Amino acid sequence: MSRVVKLAVIPGDGIGPEVVAEAVKVLDAVTAESEVVFEKTHFSLGAGRYLETGDTLTDDDLAAIAAQDAILLGAVGGVPGDPRLKDANIERGLLLKLRFELDHYVNLRPSKLYPGASGPLADPGDIDFVVVREGTEGPYVGNGGAIRRGTPHEVANETSVNTAFGVERVVRYAFALAERRRHKLTLVHKTNVLVHAGGMWKRIVDAVASEYPGVDVDYLHVDAATIFLVTNPGRFDVIVTDNLFGDILTDLAGAVTGGIGLAASGNINPDGAFPSMFEPVHGSAPDIAGTQKADATAAILSVALLLDHLGLTDEAARVTRAVEDDIASRDGARSTAQIGDAIVERVQA
Amino acid sequence: MSRVVKLAVIPGDGIGPEVVAEAVKVLDAVTAESEVVFEKTHFSLGAGRYLETGDTLTDDDLAAIAAQDAILLGAVGGVPGDPRLKDANIERGLLLKLRFELDHYVNLRPSKLYPGASGPLADPGDIDFVVVREGTEGPYVGNGGAIRRGTPHEVANETSVNTAFGVERVVRYAFALAERRRHKLTLVHKTNVLVHAGGMWKRIVDAVASEYPGVDVDYLHVDAATIFLVTNPGRFDVIVTDNLFGDILTDLAGAVTGGIGLAASGNINPDGAFPSMFEPVHGSAPDIAGTQKADATAAILSVALLLDHLGLTDEAARVTRAVEDDIASRDGARSTAQIGDAIVERVQA
Ligand SMILES: CC(C)[C@H](C(=O)O)[C@@H](O)C(=O)O
Ligand SMILES: CC(C)[C@H](C(=O)O)[C@@H](O)C(=O)O
Repeated sequence: MSRVVKLAVIPGDGIGPEVVAEAVKVLDAVTAESEVVFEKTHFSLGAGRYLETGDTLTDDDLAAIAAQDAILLGAVGGVPGDPRLKDANIERGLLLKLRFELDHYVNLRPSKLYPGASGPLADPGDIDFVVVREGTEGPYVGNGGAIRRGTPHEVANETSVNTAFGVERVVRYAFALAERRRHKLTLVHKTNVLVHAGGMWKRIVDAVASEYPGVDVDYLHVDAATIFLVTNPGRFDVIVTDNLFGDILTDLAGAVTGGIGLAASGNINPDGAFPSMFEPVHGSAPDIAGTQKADATAAILSVALLLDHLGLTDEAARVTRAVEDDIASRDGARSTAQIGDAIVERVQA
Repeated sequence: MSRVVKLAVIPGDGIGPEVVAEAVKVLDAVTAESEVVFEKTHFSLGAGRYLETGDTLTDDDLAAIAAQDAILLGAVGGVPGDPRLKDANIERGLLLKLRFELDHYVNLRPSKLYPGASGPLADPGDIDFVVVREGTEGPYVGNGGAIRRGTPHEVANETSVNTAFGVERVVRYAFALAERRRHKLTLVHKTNVLVHAGGMWKRIVDAVASEYPGVDVDYLHVDAATIFLVTNPGRFDVIVTDNLFGDILTDLAGAVTGGIGLAASGNINPDGAFPSMFEPVHGSAPDIAGTQKADATAAILSVALLLDHLGLTDEAARVTRAVEDDIASRDGARSTAQIGDAIVERVQA
């Protein structure tokens, strides 16, 4: 009896379809002879779909996606400044809606400088850390509004909402991860300014820390954390932080580890109540869409995270190893498909 | 008749007094033969004062400081984790209180890679930009609170407050600055998530832009901006952004231009209703306090910004040139005072 995994595939916009095509090739290759069968359902969502139908994410779409076991997403978002998208917010209406509705409270973003990859730092040292970004709270909740819009007396507010429930569960996840890694956890926040939210994060981290005596805990303000990311990224093992700080730190981390063309992420519901979603950190890059210039590696590494999440650790390791070998032996520019093919070959070898 | 400038000097905590001593030496040297006389009043404020008296900033302190023409500040903040400071928030109660009460709506933070300075980037290129950080609004307003504090049902909120009045004035300042520089302005925000605040910033920038046809305007999400700061910092001229994003970007910018030991800042009230305040971007670094290991350069460059603000452009230029020459000819470690002395000598030459 083979195990069936229902997989939602959301290629999205721009380079999304190109990188997802390669990710799916790799997924097929690595599971070709395994007991697991991926039953894929393709969802046409994103700016393209919105322009055709006016829909961003219907209730039916959401219900159908929620009924899957996992999600692979490319990237969503149209051409910046496209007047037809003026009233749409694909990010909030689709990507963030999925993260919130499917309770993806762990946004897992590993950062590793692979041998052969080169970033902007002169002396990067060993970089291998994971950012555990909270995914369902903070300034991302959409709890904002404006009065007297468009007048000289406009006031526009945005409220960051943080709950002990929401913070504790992601902090616990981060501690458990740190215990399986190098036993170091860094909380990043801005407790000296955001005293209420930051204070709660700090108290909860301190409380959970007492259950993990083997994990070293430290704290950095977000501004200081960006300094360390470029001067001593090797100091980090697991970073736990809020939704907005995590967004900022992981783009920077992607850059210092060789570019967001390599950065994978998982939007995870650890409870298993909803399907988790795996996606490259990069966006839809409409300027290079259709040119086969995108690097499929981040999407392929997202497949490794997906496999790992499903407990298919051998398959995950094979994909990661294939990517590592591919990065180590890179020379010269390759098309998106050439990168995918090269990794497929290594997976099959 | 000589012009008298009343200067509040707030050395503060940690390395603050050491770097301010050098900054004052340089100020004295560069104005020794000028028409301007700086009448200095020393204010003992910071964690040290709080521990002695329980006061952070009294109404009398504030009134006395507000009556000065300008302020030079070192750094404030005690030893992290000091239990005696548990209930104090020196940052909010002193530093931010000064910025808010004195309506320092422009937090001006130049970033320049001086010849001879070396940062963490392998190939930094020419870096010379200024961040115009809003100083009196955003998530810094202290508009937060918590319910059920310390229970599993705690909810902790922080509200970012943004007004058209507050955004427009800082945006206008940034455009005027861009016009005097390389005619490029980049708005940094997170409009796709913080739609109300970000939307207002964007609309106001677009509106003011129409009065500055000679200034090229672009927009970056804050996460993307951190990527460019390490991959192509030369693309920036003037960045205008909110209080929190400006905090994050300028620490990172300090790091990429050779460390925050070189980064100066001005908290400016352009209307002149209140004295403006000049301070290094770095903190009080209690771990190296009293060891003469701190670099006084950031404090000295803050003096240059102070002089410039007061219209003493020749004096400002002399300080900047002296610092540039000093950086270009650095070799080997020097004490805080040796750095100050070397710059004084160049100023006098
Ligand atoms: C597209 C955007 C809403 C999103 C975010 O801010 O979370 C992206 O930057 C990311 O990091 O996945
Ligand atoms: C000390 C802290 C409150 C302050 C800030 O966040 O503004 C500091 O980081 C700065 O950038 O001047």
